[in-house]
Amino acid sequence: MPGSGKTLFANLLKEKGFTVISMGDALRKRYEKDAKYGERLMDYAKRIREIYGDGVVARLSIEEITQSTTKIAFEGVRSLAEVEEFKRIGEPLIVAIHASPQLRYSRMTARMRADDSTDVNILRKRDLDEISLGIGGVIAMADYVVVNDSTVEEFKKKSTDIIERILR
Amino acid sequence: MPGSGKTLFANLLKEKGFTVISMGDALRKRYEKDAKYGERLMDYAKRIREIYGDGVVARLSIEEITQSTTKIAFEGVRSLAEVEEFKRIGEPLIVAIHASPQLRYSRMTARMRADDSTDVNILRKRDLDEISLGIGGVIAMADYVVVNDSTVEEFKKKSTDIIERILR
Ligand SMILES: Nc1ncnc2c1ncn2[C@@H]1O[C@H](COP(=O)(O)O)[C@@H](O)[C@H]1O
Repeated sequence: MPGSGKTLFANLLKEKGFTVISMGDALRKRYEKDAKYGERLMDYAKRIREIYGDGVVARLSIEEITQSTTKIAFEGVRSLAEVEEFKRIGEPLIVAIHASPQLRYSRMTARMRADDSTDVNILRKRDLDEISLGIGGVIAMADYVVVNDSTVEEFKKKSTDIIERILR
Repeated sequence: MPGSGKTLFANLLKEKGFTVISMGDALRKRYEKDAKYGERLMDYAKRIREIYGDGVVARLSIEEITQSTTKIAFEGVRSLAEVEEFKRIGEPLIVAIHASPQLRYSRMTARMRADDSTDVNILRKRDLDEISLGIGGVIAMADYVVVNDSTVEEFKKKSTDIIERILR
């Protein structure tokens, strides 16, 4: 979910030698070529899911693989249909990063990235949008959940433990 | 999700003075009076949700409150629509208990409760049924997540910490 800390987790994966493919970037690449005038990224994503199926962003992301390695992570999975696509090319493990809405909203308000809003109603609406894509099912079926509810150091420690369990 | 350890968490809540209302029991009570011949509990739940709305099992559960106390826990929330019903009577906090499907399936196979199956395909099908009710959205929006992936003792410790944070 937005503001949970998944990018920080992805950076730790990179440090451990993983190739991280951002599903958002794979989507954005297609969006820049293909979107309708004035269409929002989220609406574009919904539209291509309707045309090509719920797994389409996973397939666009798989296209981004350039090397042959098993240490690949896809950042930004939103539905179990996407997980099914990854199962066609390997044996994916799902890692979910969790923080409460309250914490996520205050972090997003603090960091103020261009696409983050500071209005809690807008942030909540965006959460419900993500949930409508099916992200909740992915979290429910996760192999690992990292709870990011204290310090960055604590989160890094928990994340590193989990990455080591995965690599074992 | 089935087999994650939510009943164990509910028992700890009881020890701390909470009244725990099982949403499954509230549903079952109505089911026993009202179900069609041969209808499964889950199918009955889906049917009454279609008739009365996605929050109906929460409303049946709220009917079960007999004392006036703020220390009430509802076990078995399956959708954000149910959370909205609870918001009408108070300020609910969501606690999700997480364990990986692999762990949950092996625990359910070991305990063999009446409504547990040992066939992984059936367990997975039941998971997807729960997800179709909207449980993933509830987990995604949880205020607290307890990860139940090691021993019972460890889980009890983490749970007690969280209950104490809630009561503070
Ligand atoms: N809030 C709910 N909404 C719909 N079905 C429910 C709900 N709570 C329990 N159930 C059903 O009751 C069964 C037993 O629930 P539980 O006691 O939570 O394990 C589940 O498999 C569900 O089919």
